[in-house]
Amino acid sequence: METSALSVLDIAENIRFQDSYKNIPVANINNHVVRLSIMTEPYFWHFHPDSDETFLVIEGIVVIDLEDRTIELLPNQLFTIPKNVVHRTRPKGTRSVNLTFEHAELTTTRIEKPD
Amino acid sequence: METSALSVLDIAENIRFQDSYKNIPVANINNHVVRLSIMTEPYFWHFHPDSDETFLVIEGIVVIDLEDRTIELLPNQLFTIPKNVVHRTRPKGTRSVNLTFEHAELTTTRIEKPD
Repeated sequence: METSALSVLDIAENIRFQDSYKNIPVANINNHVVRLSIMTEPYFWHFHPDSDETFLVIEGIVVIDLEDRTIELLPNQLFTIPKNVVHRTRPKGTRSVNLTFEHAELTTTRIEKPD
Repeated sequence: METSALSVLDIAENIRFQDSYKNIPVANINNHVVRLSIMTEPYFWHFHPDSDETFLVIEGIVVIDLEDRTIELLPNQLFTIPKNVVHRTRPKGTRSVNLTFEHAELTTTRIEKPD
């Protein structure tokens, strides 16, 4: 197979000078996807009825609120949220960068909750 | 859902003082897996007939030999090898650390090739 179409993706190049919310696919693996996310403010409470979701922090601290506890995830730490588990993510400070691994066609179901 | 069984995995803790080959699952996402690999010598030439495979380098340099070219992957760089593409991985130097994302039950087919 001709492999010249395959290319390296550099995370640092993709997050430099980015101060606003960004969430882009950076790798496709079968029917799953790796997404690069720059988080600048809290996301809404939600769950995914059809996919687990693994977070890997690249820069900053990602706070993951679950219904019964809160987790602070540091660079090079991984955490997996099973499908159907209600959660909310937010940066600690003004910016965090993380990768997520999940089904490429996952459903996101929003939940209304008081802050 | 009771989330106390869910735990954070710290990559640095898992690779400290590790100077020999290691390849362990660190997260399960649906029928896919994230594996943490400490590479100390070349792996054999192979391909996966049933899964793509994405590499993310954590430490050191991972060299990926393809049949028609060689790629050097640095920390925070991602590269995806589509299913059926023959490849061989090796560290540049004595140790590299990477994550792979792939189907949890992928097949590995070994290929005999001269070095």
